[in-house]
Amino acid sequence: MTGSKTPVCGDDVIEQTLQAISFNAEGLVPAIAQQHDSGEILMMAWMNAEAIRETLNSARVCYWSRSRAKLWRKGETSGQVQSLIGFRWDCDADTVLILVDQHGVACHTGRRNCFYNAITDGQINIIADPEIDPGKLYT
Amino acid sequence: MTGSKTPVCGDDVIEQTLQAISFNAEGLVPAIAQQHDSGEILMMAWMNAEAIRETLNSARVCYWSRSRAKLWRKGETSGQVQSLIGFRWDCDADTVLILVDQHGVACHTGRRNCFYNAITDGQINIIADPEIDPGKLYT
Repeated sequence: MTGSKTPVCGDDVIEQTLQAISFNAEGLVPAIAQQHDSGEILMMAWMNAEAIRETLNSARVCYWSRSRAKLWRKGETSGQVQSLIGFRWDCDADTVLILVDQHGVACHTGRRNCFYNAITDGQINIIADPEIDPGKLYT
Repeated sequence: MTGSKTPVCGDDVIEQTLQAISFNAEGLVPAIAQQHDSGEILMMAWMNAEAIRETLNSARVCYWSRSRAKLWRKGETSGQVQSLIGFRWDCDADTVLILVDQHGVACHTGRRNCFYNAITDGQINIIADPEIDPGKLYT
């Protein structure tokens, strides 16, 4: 279930981490995924306790899909997995920052990251093109 | 109210942006603040339509404080303001990424950024020290 990768930490530290984190009323916490070396912000998604447990056990990022109401092992369909490099949380313990190594692209549109809508030169513009045909990601 | 800085865009583009963004049931959207040049993730907070309007009108970051239930002009008490450099949103339009120039420190603990809790070497560690005495930030 959690793959064959080496856990980031022991079960005791995972449970301490889950104790530390403030989940919202739905049992979720937002997780920002940042490419560990370039600093690029790839995406933001949500995790519940089970997703964090699996992520730290497998060193491969697993989110909670709110739309599908199930664990979302990033890349399990598309192959665009995220290897976990670092796991942090903020002063209020209500946001997680994960440092990852993104294989391929993070965005379901085929773009490297999800933040491609921008105000530039006083107008709304799309600032990145798809690197992969999204039709090829999900076949 | 919005200061004397130059707006990022006209009112029409601000309204188009607000139309594009998917606010949650509370009328809020999470906003990730990233230092524009270093790529450091400083903090995550929330914005409502009014906060976005003010941010784009003033080029100075304004959040919505959920705990105080009011606009939170970042730095208005501490002086640690965030100048807006870029404004982006993601594929689902439910998360905003703001590129900022942080004056001083972002975190109320006096640390440069809020994400100082980390799992390193298999343990939970605090990986950053305060740069400013927080007692001096709020007097």
